[in-house]
Amino acid sequence: MDSEQVAAAARRAASVAAGAPTAQKNEVLGGMAEKLTARKSDILAANEEDLANAKAKGLSSHLVDRLRFGEAKIDGRIRCLRKIQALPDPVGQVFRSDLRPNGLLATRVRAPIGVIMMIYEARPHVTVNAGAFCLKSGNAAILRGGSEARTCNVLLGELWHEALRESGLPEHCVQVVTGSHEEIGDLLQQQACIDLVIPRGSARLIEAVKTQSRIPVLKHFEGICHVYVDDSADLDKAAEIAIDAKCLMPEVCNAMETLLVARACEGWLPTVVEAFRRHEVKVKGCERTCALAPNVEPANAQDWRTEYLDMIVSIRVVSDVSEAIEHINTYGSHHTDAIVTDSESRARRFVRDVDSGVVLVNGSTMFCDGESLGMGAEIGISTDKLHARGPMGLEDLTTYKHVIWGQGQVMGELGA
Amino acid sequence: MDSEQVAAAARRAASVAAGAPTAQKNEVLGGMAEKLTARKSDILAANEEDLANAKAKGLSSHLVDRLRFGEAKIDGRIRCLRKIQALPDPVGQVFRSDLRPNGLLATRVRAPIGVIMMIYEARPHVTVNAGAFCLKSGNAAILRGGSEARTCNVLLGELWHEALRESGLPEHCVQVVTGSHEEIGDLLQQQACIDLVIPRGSARLIEAVKTQSRIPVLKHFEGICHVYVDDSADLDKAAEIAIDAKCLMPEVCNAMETLLVARACEGWLPTVVEAFRRHEVKVKGCERTCALAPNVEPANAQDWRTEYLDMIVSIRVVSDVSEAIEHINTYGSHHTDAIVTDSESRARRFVRDVDSGVVLVNGSTMFCDGESLGMGAEIGISTDKLHARGPMGLEDLTTYKHVIWGQGQVMGELGA
Repeated sequence: MDSEQVAAAARRAASVAAGAPTAQKNEVLGGMAEKLTARKSDILAANEEDLANAKAKGLSSHLVDRLRFGEAKIDGRIRCLRKIQALPDPVGQVFRSDLRPNGLLATRVRAPIGVIMMIYEARPHVTVNAGAFCLKSGNAAILRGGSEARTCNVLLGELWHEALRESGLPEHCVQVVTGSHEEIGDLLQQQACIDLVIPRGSARLIEAVKTQSRIPVLKHFEGICHVYVDDSADLDKAAEIAIDAKCLMPEVCNAMETLLVARACEGWLPTVVEAFRRHEVKVKGCERTCALAPNVEPANAQDWRTEYLDMIVSIRVVSDVSEAIEHINTYGSHHTDAIVTDSESRARRFVRDVDSGVVLVNGSTMFCDGESLGMGAEIGISTDKLHARGPMGLEDLTTYKHVIWGQGQVMGELGA
Repeated sequence: MDSEQVAAAARRAASVAAGAPTAQKNEVLGGMAEKLTARKSDILAANEEDLANAKAKGLSSHLVDRLRFGEAKIDGRIRCLRKIQALPDPVGQVFRSDLRPNGLLATRVRAPIGVIMMIYEARPHVTVNAGAFCLKSGNAAILRGGSEARTCNVLLGELWHEALRESGLPEHCVQVVTGSHEEIGDLLQQQACIDLVIPRGSARLIEAVKTQSRIPVLKHFEGICHVYVDDSADLDKAAEIAIDAKCLMPEVCNAMETLLVARACEGWLPTVVEAFRRHEVKVKGCERTCALAPNVEPANAQDWRTEYLDMIVSIRVVSDVSEAIEHINTYGSHHTDAIVTDSESRARRFVRDVDSGVVLVNGSTMFCDGESLGMGAEIGISTDKLHARGPMGLEDLTTYKHVIWGQGQVMGELGA
């Protein structure tokens, strides 16, 4: 099928998916979970083929690792399908309701967006997740994974088709596409049939999509995340939070990259630098940090803008909460930022003025996560401001309708 | 100032507006209301100048009418400013709150979007409204009205600056720009400083903005709105609704353009055609309509896609609610559509499957209006699906932050 056909097929499938009962959608998710179990050896073989090709092409071991879709990861996806199955269906939820003086009942009801195109790099597990999220929220999905994962993604796409057909839904509800960059470019022009594009990956990928697309784009960009330690902070808590935010999962977008410390408590710096060192974190710092703590490498302006995604942290001393906010809004990526403080007024100031999707008080940036925030699961973390911000759950893949129930009301008095 | 300076000034102003207390923002709105009263004669004179230029250029009388900003319209704007003043401030509203098992309080808090650029044609009253809506919701506004309204818009921009300065807010919170199409094109490239563009006007204007802009666009497109009369309908109510939806304000986007009638009640057609005729509406119809009612002009496929914005209606007989839904989703503009029926199941079917921003049961399409729906006032009607759909109020000019309150929680058990 060419791009126009893929998009048109998705549009037709979406109109069926939009009205599909919850039980039918859940049946597809259950069917997919069973297929991942039954066809595990085929999936592993397909992934092995991708891994062999990747190694032959000389891909970095980091990328090869991300590409690996082993038994444990497949089992993780099966659990994830079961979890999404158990989540409430957002479609049809009435989330606002207002009985007007003239008797009209004005409501807002969640409805699917329509056709959602996801573009991501490598990782075949997204092919399972994204399909499940889009389908449960009543949307059709067009999934374009990295070309390195092609064999495995194509197989997962076939399993989606089987599961959809067996439950009586159109197989084009979930389509895996593997075309060239030109064909993806063509798809990005199908604004009549595609409602939303969600790119996840490198800054370069996201910029390329944004530049080419006339379809609305919801970006999942990098995270340059901060923890600011105020002089009113409980410094033991501050150290726990800084270590957790940096070291627990340094490779994820909400890991802390820069620690900001109020000048009035700069005496704490040797303690926290030593803690980082115990956890084998390389420390870079501003002049003041270098002066106060041993073996700190000088940080430059570029460091404040760098997403290390690694066991590296930069530290800067700031005069107070105002300078911390300014640093974060200037150098950060509006993703996830935290303050550690015992001052309610400074916490409120920080929360109001830091322009980020997730702002935490006295908590680790690790909690920027759909599960932790009570959303059940997440499909990604939006760094855009519009439509959805921060961790995105099922609800964030829906739009709404104003549905108004009357008994024959008219606005004027014209008479028939 | 060039485009980059305008955008950068708006960004700086936005960061102040975002934190401005409600009382201060309301003071600006009150100040602006007072200035519209005190400077009424200057405003009228500026508008007269625009009108004279428009006539000299040979603008259509329709456009000249829309350009007119007379005393009654100015008074209307003063009332509107007072109304927006009285509306609750959306910024800082906590609209979701979830205490997690680990003691984290996960909340969602409304926050301003940042810098909003509005592009509209003619009508100077939008310069007052849009400024008020953006400011009250904590955003900075860049306002580009039609070049025909230039003199009046520039004066209104000066009044905004005065009102802002007098209340201690940066004057660049509301900027009126009057540059050439090229300069507007430059502004549409300032994605680092402008967060959202809202074009309102002709399809051509909106397409041009959408094509040029790399900034997210929220479109206010045309309305090809329908009323479907089901065979279970109370036909007296149906006639009242059809007349109200067509005749009360035929020039607005939510006026009905096409009436769909179920075949099983096609015997009603002569009655409703006669009612339209009494209200001096020109009637076009499908073959069946022409056969059943006198003096109906044949409609062609183009009619089903036409926004008349005039005292013209097209009528089509459809077999049932399914065909009505198919017609609406095929030919309509996903704006506002109504069903008249006494069947609960058909109403639910219509509400679920019609893919429009506003769907009404037994009510006139005239009620697609922020005031009628309990939003206090509206800044426009979005025909987009993302972020905001249908009538947009203050809340729809905001985004949100996930704000999480902890007591030192960390996710792992690494220790400091």
